[in-house]
Amino acid sequence: MSSFKQEPHKLLVIPGPIEVADDVLYANAHPSMSHMSADFVPVLGDCLRMTRQVLYSTTAQPFIIAGSGTLGWDQVAANLVEPGESVLLLNSGYFGDSFTECLQAYGANVDEVRADFGTAADLDEVAKALSAKKYKLVAFTHVDTSTGVLSDAKAVAATVQRVSPDTLVVMDAVCSVASEDIRMDAWGLDVVLTASQKGLGTPPGLSILVASQKALKVFEARTRPVASYYASWKKWLPVMRAYEAGSAAYFATPPVNLIYAYHASLTQITRGAPSLEERFAAHRRASARIKDACAALGLRQLPRDPAYAANGMTAVYFPAGLAAPDVVPRLLQKDVVVAGGLHKDHKDKYFRIGHMGITVTHEERGDIDRIVAALRETFAEAEASKKA
Amino acid sequence: MSSFKQEPHKLLVIPGPIEVADDVLYANAHPSMSHMSADFVPVLGDCLRMTRQVLYSTTAQPFIIAGSGTLGWDQVAANLVEPGESVLLLNSGYFGDSFTECLQAYGANVDEVRADFGTAADLDEVAKALSAKKYKLVAFTHVDTSTGVLSDAKAVAATVQRVSPDTLVVMDAVCSVASEDIRMDAWGLDVVLTASQKGLGTPPGLSILVASQKALKVFEARTRPVASYYASWKKWLPVMRAYEAGSAAYFATPPVNLIYAYHASLTQITRGAPSLEERFAAHRRASARIKDACAALGLRQLPRDPAYAANGMTAVYFPAGLAAPDVVPRLLQKDVVVAGGLHKDHKDKYFRIGHMGITVTHEERGDIDRIVAALRETFAEAEASKKA
Repeated sequence: MSSFKQEPHKLLVIPGPIEVADDVLYANAHPSMSHMSADFVPVLGDCLRMTRQVLYSTTAQPFIIAGSGTLGWDQVAANLVEPGESVLLLNSGYFGDSFTECLQAYGANVDEVRADFGTAADLDEVAKALSAKKYKLVAFTHVDTSTGVLSDAKAVAATVQRVSPDTLVVMDAVCSVASEDIRMDAWGLDVVLTASQKGLGTPPGLSILVASQKALKVFEARTRPVASYYASWKKWLPVMRAYEAGSAAYFATPPVNLIYAYHASLTQITRGAPSLEERFAAHRRASARIKDACAALGLRQLPRDPAYAANGMTAVYFPAGLAAPDVVPRLLQKDVVVAGGLHKDHKDKYFRIGHMGITVTHEERGDIDRIVAALRETFAEAEASKKA
Repeated sequence: MSSFKQEPHKLLVIPGPIEVADDVLYANAHPSMSHMSADFVPVLGDCLRMTRQVLYSTTAQPFIIAGSGTLGWDQVAANLVEPGESVLLLNSGYFGDSFTECLQAYGANVDEVRADFGTAADLDEVAKALSAKKYKLVAFTHVDTSTGVLSDAKAVAATVQRVSPDTLVVMDAVCSVASEDIRMDAWGLDVVLTASQKGLGTPPGLSILVASQKALKVFEARTRPVASYYASWKKWLPVMRAYEAGSAAYFATPPVNLIYAYHASLTQITRGAPSLEERFAAHRRASARIKDACAALGLRQLPRDPAYAANGMTAVYFPAGLAAPDVVPRLLQKDVVVAGGLHKDHKDKYFRIGHMGITVTHEERGDIDRIVAALRETFAEAEASKKA
């Protein structure tokens, strides 16, 4: 029944969850299957292989586990850091604060390089911090979903490798995988962690993390036991290796239907049209259209420098005189669902638009046109109403 | 499109995941929705209320989080036990071993009352252990999925309350919620933890845990910080309370589609026919039919006493001269999927049949008849083939 069509609904253009394709939703409605069955084993096996491919890696180890993206932070904190070890966190927003809190919950000693609001961390400061002290790992958010700030992942990794080559480079890529170009092996990223519901175009519920062989060596050299059970790679590594090698293994029941859905989306991303390279270019083009339309309406972006603005989402301030209640409900009336602000100091001052996945790649849907038109009408109405 | 029908498939009768109803799968294919939207808030709110109802509780606090059932152990270990505190674990199989390992990973000092294989823990031994030492909590597995042994939850709780009333009673009910009668408030259970893919009739991917107000007080009286981030009730409690009160709150993105699916299944369980009481009676009847059919085929159950055999699954030894390769593939050829053994010392000696959810309650499906017929044919064929 490849003729499955999802119900009519409002256009979901928040920075995740995103619009999900009919075939992916249909896979999520797959008949119930045994997680140990010969039918299911290659599905999870393929997901592991295709996840690696999206990150242009040939050797890294993916983990696909039932959980929210947040669980990826716990995986890093519990498996790669031992209590009292130091982590340097490049904080570019809300998710930087939370990642620090997670690392501290597991006993890490966290120093931060804090970026000014709307910017990414300064790499000279990062280099200075790395010269002054030994860090087990450097962690940063590729796209901070609270601000739409894009960090230069390649440059961060290069800085770490130049100044402190033993330090692991950990990237929170929840809001960037499959919407931003990420070259895990070439850039030397040791952990890329993400979730299913953003660029990967799958319903939420999968914590997806990819670890380099260097990261696994650091994990294997731990002197103290892993301080978690559910997030322990000691438990998950044999399971992931078994499924990729073609046999089932058990630690905890995998979210079978979500993995069928993820398989359907990954198949489209890695084997369908557009190609990966074209996918990233399409996200850049769609992003430019949304950002240009916002600029034409007088909406200023949160990221201060266009070079540090994400391609999968746009965060813009309300113009003087207008606020969320003037804008968000009007967009909703036009069946366009955007997100409010999230960063604690600024959350009432801005809103966010997601443009990832099929909204970008399936041009025949006309989603970008629809967003642009809804924005224009909404701001015209809101300003007219203020004047009245 | 309530006319949705899932694809034809083999009958899945392992002890979870189980067969899932068409309307539940269709809900899993719901268009993507914002986790913060006014549409979604009451869906999660209702799931919290209906979860409480399935356990006959009026005051306990449910947590519904993206994860496997295993995450429930981490929630208990990270939130209710502080390092060095003592836990008494009643070990009736594979899942007892794992729960102990999880508690130890968080620094708990675990003593076990080990049951002989095929039996539940002896309550005199439990009382003796509780008299001899102060325990923060007693933990036990209601139905050990590896053996099909059912513990007497009411009697365990009564024993704890009699001998050590401050001690919390924690029940792993992954393989019993909605297939066995559980009276959380009346029996005095403090934590009931489960997952979506067994009696609750939903695809896997939800860790579902319900904590009594007494358990929450113990949590709030912690002197040391919670040793987890993703499993921290400090993070989840405000979120669950907000959704139940009718407003969105954010910690980590909930698995929106799975929650729609869970809502569809809970609606059937709590508001549809049969009633909850009739549901448990139907599971007892179906279980008796399967167990009688097995007995007629000369298959001996793992649980030594019929009073301690689960009603949602059956675990039986292969008869002399036959093994898994003689039986399991023949059942599979008849499109009936059962599970092999799991308990490490005995796993090649037995197999397991799940009979939960729609396989039991929707008699018009004829699943129980089909399982019985397939078992009869399979053993006839297997024995004929051995003689030949």
